[in-house]
Amino acid sequence: MDKPKVERLKINYKTLEEFQKFHEYGLQELSMLEDLKANIIENDSNSPFYGIYENGNLVARISLYRIDAKYDRYFNPPQDYYELWKLEVLPQYRNKGYGSALVRHAQSFGLPVKTNARRRSDPFWIKMGFRPVKYDPIRDRGENPYVWTPPGVDLQE
Amino acid sequence: MDKPKVERLKINYKTLEEFQKFHEYGLQELSMLEDLKANIIENDSNSPFYGIYENGNLVARISLYRIDAKYDRYFNPPQDYYELWKLEVLPQYRNKGYGSALVRHAQSFGLPVKTNARRRSDPFWIKMGFRPVKYDPIRDRGENPYVWTPPGVDLQE
Repeated sequence: MDKPKVERLKINYKTLEEFQKFHEYGLQELSMLEDLKANIIENDSNSPFYGIYENGNLVARISLYRIDAKYDRYFNPPQDYYELWKLEVLPQYRNKGYGSALVRHAQSFGLPVKTNARRRSDPFWIKMGFRPVKYDPIRDRGENPYVWTPPGVDLQE
Repeated sequence: MDKPKVERLKINYKTLEEFQKFHEYGLQELSMLEDLKANIIENDSNSPFYGIYENGNLVARISLYRIDAKYDRYFNPPQDYYELWKLEVLPQYRNKGYGSALVRHAQSFGLPVKTNARRRSDPFWIKMGFRPVKYDPIRDRGENPYVWTPPGVDLQE
């Protein structure tokens, strides 16, 4: 099988229509649609989303937010990092390595990555080289944070 | 049908064992278990969890975090509010009003409540009197925030 090709998604009406196929659809996607209609953003602006296409259809996606070092409460030394959200592969396209390919793409930028491992997905994140943080009730407020760090980066105590 | 009785959950080995039945189980629950074993917290301390029992078994729960007014980026005037997480009713106990009862309990404290409406649960939150915020990419980072406000409380612009 060919290596899945990960693309940065363009914000346009086709992309936003394809987003409706995903479970995790909400204010973020609706806000993009409104901004597009109101010409606040241009057709084909880059989005925080990355995805994989099969036969021209979007079948998997993640959202990546770059967090500024001044808000970093996870890594040592404090630095810019990515929060990874909304990893989702459409049901009929699972077990083809698409989720792993998207996560590896996030790791390829060389910055630490933090996610909230939901619904007992911990084994997947461990497989991808992530590790759980030491839970801090004030910082983590019920989240289940897993992080991946490039060489030379530690966790805050 | 009797009105479901919502209880604040005690942290003890029985509660933590029951938590394992829920999908959203992770570092928070494991951390409580470790703290209990290490005597850092006492058996029967109060937790941020509230739940509903049926025949002595925990069948529904939420987690509520009180956020200090100084971190409030949602409400006007800025004030303490609750973040509601991990609303979950075990599959065989759904459609009995347990989710609604837990949310009403959160509202009964008189402070605003904020949640992240996941997996297209928006209609449920609307029914409970919540409304979507105006999406702010910096603040909301892919979340789908819905809020409930008591009388006299507005949203930040």
